[in-house]
Amino acid sequence: MKNPEIFIKSSEIAWEDLGDGLSRQILGRDSSLMVVRVRFEKGSVGAKHSHPHRQVSYIESGAFEVEIDCKKQVLRSGDSFYVPPDTEHGAVPLQDSVIIDVFNPARDDFLRKS
Amino acid sequence: MKNPEIFIKSSEIAWEDLGDGLSRQILGRDSSLMVVRVRFEKGSVGAKHSHPHRQVSYIESGAFEVEIDCKKQVLRSGDSFYVPPDTEHGAVPLQDSVIIDVFNPARDDFLRKS
Repeated sequence: MKNPEIFIKSSEIAWEDLGDGLSRQILGRDSSLMVVRVRFEKGSVGAKHSHPHRQVSYIESGAFEVEIDCKKQVLRSGDSFYVPPDTEHGAVPLQDSVIIDVFNPARDDFLRKS
Repeated sequence: MKNPEIFIKSSEIAWEDLGDGLSRQILGRDSSLMVVRVRFEKGSVGAKHSHPHRQVSYIESGAFEVEIDCKKQVLRSGDSFYVPPDTEHGAVPLQDSVIIDVFNPARDDFLRKS
């Protein structure tokens, strides 16, 4: 991997359209840490999935019904959640919402797709 | 460390007063990943320092003059920055501002203080 970017301006990063009302920006990162901003339109779905990376997510705006390991909770702007490695999780936005997803290690699979 | 919290509600987490116009909430975390929300009042200073943890920060609101390894840049809401391990960095808010700081590994020193 080339040297990580130090200063990351949102206006200079494209929003990657993931389809079905979801889009994302990959923000600061190196091989061990990656921060991703994801925009959910109301009616979209963050489908349940799992990955070996641990994850913390921070709800920047809006609200979600979050499911982690078969437990559900409604979380709103300012709330966060933790996903252990290899644990099924998903999030359904209750309105237009933005979330900050943080991964350790980095989601190299996101870079191959983009 | 006990099992990490899965769902973290902002309203249930105390703001720790760090003095001099700075306060923080420790959000989702395990031993390898920690997300911290820091509120800076205008006139406060995130003094230059370094630590062995890599860091990505995301500006939730406001604006900062950020200095990393002797390079300065003004960053605003939606922007982010990456701090390599053991690299001196600091941030001076240009107005009341909130930042999301992400660390790998976790900042155990924050837990000992709180």
